[in-house]
Amino acid sequence: MSEDSLSLVLFSGTADKLHVAATLAAGAAAMGRPVNVLLQYWALDAFRTERIAEDRGLAWDATTDGTSRPVNGSASIPWLETFRMSKELGEMSILACSGSLDILGIDVTTLDPLVDGAGGIASFLMAAEGGQILFI
Amino acid sequence: MSEDSLSLVLFSGTADKLHVAATLAAGAAAMGRPVNVLLQYWALDAFRTERIAEDRGLAWDATTDGTSRPVNGSASIPWLETFRMSKELGEMSILACSGSLDILGIDVTTLDPLVDGAGGIASFLMAAEGGQILFI
Amino acid sequence: MSEDSLSLVLFSGTADKLHVAATLAAGAAAMGRPVNVLLQYWALDAFRTERIAEDRGLAWDATTDGTSRPVNGSASIPWLETFRMSKELGEMSILACSGSLDILGIDVTTLDPLVDGAGGIASFLMAAEGGQILFI
Repeated sequence: MSEDSLSLVLFSGTADKLHVAATLAAGAAAMGRPVNVLLQYWALDAFRTERIAEDRGLAWDATTDGTSRPVNGSASIPWLETFRMSKELGEMSILACSGSLDILGIDVTTLDPLVDGAGGIASFLMAAEGGQILFI
Repeated sequence: MSEDSLSLVLFSGTADKLHVAATLAAGAAAMGRPVNVLLQYWALDAFRTERIAEDRGLAWDATTDGTSRPVNGSASIPWLETFRMSKELGEMSILACSGSLDILGIDVTTLDPLVDGAGGIASFLMAAEGGQILFI
Repeated sequence: MSEDSLSLVLFSGTADKLHVAATLAAGAAAMGRPVNVLLQYWALDAFRTERIAEDRGLAWDATTDGTSRPVNGSASIPWLETFRMSKELGEMSILACSGSLDILGIDVTTLDPLVDGAGGIASFLMAAEGGQILFI
């Protein structure tokens, strides 16, 4: 645990939410803050090696008529590149939630090498203690 | 208020998000941390006695082609059981947000007995002060 | 930065989520806590002057059969009025995220006057440091 850590429970798997998660992680890492990311459900699914290059689409909020659109399309949103860069900027751990792995029937070895391993809620909460946590 | 409390503003009503909320609550309760849950909108709707046994489905993120699926289906996701267990593990309060009750026209007496009563944003923020808060 | 600040990364653009964000901001402002709001993606889109009076609809969670509905319809959810009131209650800053402005191709001058200007993730994280942050 660290008082200035930023911890992200990353549940969502659309390109826009993965992107804001990655930019928050990058910002904190650049400030020298330790970053802990726990991948659950659809964020975990997004990190599957065989699907990682696919367009993850946009949040439900984007489905309304008249809503703005990403100027270069959703496939251009650089969420993965931003996560890669974040990991080079500072101290950052990306773990797959063991419970979500079981529910989706995914094995940790089928995930992108950016993922450091598997971990549970209890150890994540302990690492996050004293710092700030966001659920995305 | 307590420095080590975990507070959840629980807005979402799909089985997957209710489940991760319940596991975070359980993890914190098991560590001896006080847990405060405020039910709003669709999470509040999920706790209506007459609908509590229904399949709450999955988040929008799961609608994309090729996305993984819960291996036993979404109806098998044990969100309610996990909340029940969490309440037995430690000090945990589950309140229905008064404002959301009004907007949805729901009375607190129509909710599952796991819900301790109704409460407002101000008293929730006061209970949460000094600890960690997540919006789910 | 301030130990008792409440900071909101506001990403969502549906009326229900904008409303709960506004009530949390109002509650914190009424307690004398500084409030920092960073508008991203669909929340940013909601603050476009030419669309600000439109019905923003409800979250995906509301699409299931049998789900409760706002008793006066989603157009009646007073998210904008609540934000206006919050700003009068206390110290509150609403900034448009520079990165999201670029991705959506929106100029800050096209946003409602409630928005104080544009800002980046790093300065937001610095303002939020030591306080509580929520992602909505």
